[in-house]
Amino acid sequence: MRFELLKADGLARAGRLSTPHGVVETPAFMPVGTQGSVKSLAPEDLRQIGTQILLANTYHLFLRPGHLLVAELGGLHRFMAWEGPILTDSGGFQVYSLASLGRVTEEGVRFRSHLDGAEHLLTPELSVEIQQALGADIIHPLDECLAHPAPRAQTEASLALTLRWAARAKAAWRRGDGRQAMFGIVQGGGYEDVRRRAVEEACALEFDGYAVGGLAVGEPKPLMLDLLEFTAALLPKDRPRYLMGVGTPPDLLGAVARGVDLFDCVLPTRNARNGQLFTAAGVLTIKQARYATDQRPADEGCPCYTCRTFSRAYLRHLFAARELLAYRLLSLHNLHFYLALMAETRAAIRAGAFETFRARFLARYAVSSGGGPSATFESTEV
Amino acid sequence: MRFELLKADGLARAGRLSTPHGVVETPAFMPVGTQGSVKSLAPEDLRQIGTQILLANTYHLFLRPGHLLVAELGGLHRFMAWEGPILTDSGGFQVYSLASLGRVTEEGVRFRSHLDGAEHLLTPELSVEIQQALGADIIHPLDECLAHPAPRAQTEASLALTLRWAARAKAAWRRGDGRQAMFGIVQGGGYEDVRRRAVEEACALEFDGYAVGGLAVGEPKPLMLDLLEFTAALLPKDRPRYLMGVGTPPDLLGAVARGVDLFDCVLPTRNARNGQLFTAAGVLTIKQARYATDQRPADEGCPCYTCRTFSRAYLRHLFAARELLAYRLLSLHNLHFYLALMAETRAAIRAGAFETFRARFLARYAVSSGGGPSATFESTEV
Repeated sequence: MRFELLKADGLARAGRLSTPHGVVETPAFMPVGTQGSVKSLAPEDLRQIGTQILLANTYHLFLRPGHLLVAELGGLHRFMAWEGPILTDSGGFQVYSLASLGRVTEEGVRFRSHLDGAEHLLTPELSVEIQQALGADIIHPLDECLAHPAPRAQTEASLALTLRWAARAKAAWRRGDGRQAMFGIVQGGGYEDVRRRAVEEACALEFDGYAVGGLAVGEPKPLMLDLLEFTAALLPKDRPRYLMGVGTPPDLLGAVARGVDLFDCVLPTRNARNGQLFTAAGVLTIKQARYATDQRPADEGCPCYTCRTFSRAYLRHLFAARELLAYRLLSLHNLHFYLALMAETRAAIRAGAFETFRARFLARYAVSSGGGPSATFESTEV
Repeated sequence: MRFELLKADGLARAGRLSTPHGVVETPAFMPVGTQGSVKSLAPEDLRQIGTQILLANTYHLFLRPGHLLVAELGGLHRFMAWEGPILTDSGGFQVYSLASLGRVTEEGVRFRSHLDGAEHLLTPELSVEIQQALGADIIHPLDECLAHPAPRAQTEASLALTLRWAARAKAAWRRGDGRQAMFGIVQGGGYEDVRRRAVEEACALEFDGYAVGGLAVGEPKPLMLDLLEFTAALLPKDRPRYLMGVGTPPDLLGAVARGVDLFDCVLPTRNARNGQLFTAAGVLTIKQARYATDQRPADEGCPCYTCRTFSRAYLRHLFAARELLAYRLLSLHNLHFYLALMAETRAAIRAGAFETFRARFLARYAVSSGGGPSATFESTEV
């Protein structure tokens, strides 16, 4: 994997990430394909809206259909017919958030599957083995992610465990074929000095990029942005930075302004299934009665298939009638919105006009939505 | 509307139906878009698989979003962004099968909505008014449809009512703009002499085509085919014939062999949502364990997007994981299968080789499926 920094505009960065399955222009947003499918969308749809890279969840694919089966079928790219880059998480976050959590020991984390209750032990080595079997372009070491707030002593002990696991994951990764990049994960909770140590020790292990973890786990948004700014400033400039599981469109721009290059979030697809559309003028809740006879597209001026083809009135009807097509059309638009926002962000950075672009976007976006729904913070689409 | 008979091959017919929204080569299969959407598919998908004409349900669109709203938005074609021909039923069948049925009187049929329990009175005039507001290319008069078996006296009385309603519907239709064709519906239950009278009196009203109703309502399949053959032989040769709500692939070929030109059925889409794929070798139930590592496409040699792109193993995974994409990919394939079957049927008829084609299809189709699932007999996709 190669990462080139093309342009800096304040702390915002435009870059280019080259992977075995293609190039990712950054900042980039990754649609979430939890179970090997971005909910309701086909690879053809994803390509049409400009998807560069997908996220898939190690935890889910380990449980079903199983990483060995995916490997037998030629790997995740072939299995899901997505030829572009794929990033996988370590599975840890889902163990903490979805599974019935057992003990966390030096060895790894014991849990019971949310599907059938079967007990498993996820170790740093197994996590790497799963991700290698899936064949993702970018993989992650198992980490521990604490909710906010956590006491200092617990945060320090957790970070120490995460770093020992990271060293084991890196060692396991070295036994692979080297085609996969591995990002380190920076934890450290809400303590700047602990975050500083997290960055230093993760960097000592020399990862191909760095994910900022343990943010958007319950802390207020201003604190989240402060911690992000503090952490990002410590990271090496020549490696990509990935903010896990964030967030709303304003969140993304706020993180870009602090030097983040990669994002994933389930908001575009999950909110689509709840009838919420992201538009340039803010969030539009399609089930509202005022859209019953509204002939306008969901987002005026949007060139996506949904907006080119259908009225708000029709989308509202589909949603009210629980037609499956509603989920697809809304997901398609929302992901297109996120991807187009990132494309415009890249262009603005390259033109040295990111803050103007951001201010203009926020001024219009806030009009009707007050900034939209609060972020959800999971890289999991269930 | 114009109908040209291009070629007869035995009783099988190849024809061409010209409507204000385009030409339909017959025999043709109509995907069912009950609520103004063929479940899980966009108009773009429908065009790509060769859809010529859709069916939409008057009952559903009357209740939600309402025919007046659809008219205000420019009619059903524009509302659902389908530029091709649309056929609507009268709404009667759904009142009998879905709604909480009230009294059937000379005036019409009282029912309570399956959505909210609201009471409505559907009259022949209202049914035409709804269909005119929707703007379908082909509409139908309100009729009464009896389950099999029904006593002779009841069948005769019901037919008489259906014919009086047909005359009222025709009168209401004459007050329209003449752009819509109206098909008559032939009832008559399981009695050949009553069916004969049904044909004679429907023909006396001079409809643009004739739908054969009251079949596949509980009678054994051989009786269904006998009644169809008897009825079709009485119908005028120069008008299209539509067999409502039928059926499996072998059913379609059996009906083509008896002179039917138009079909609709929910089987391709409903069975897709139940994990059943129609293939040249019969019905494939994707959830079966034997497909877990099967790299072959669902239907070998099929050129549809699903079969070109994904393995049985992946489709099985999507279905097991209840991914929304499963329903779309299976629906797309199944409808493609039905539409391609009709295209091959037309070519065979034009080449004077229909019976050879049919025998060959059935020999292969029966191998693994024993003929597939039993038909369901509703023109409603709920």
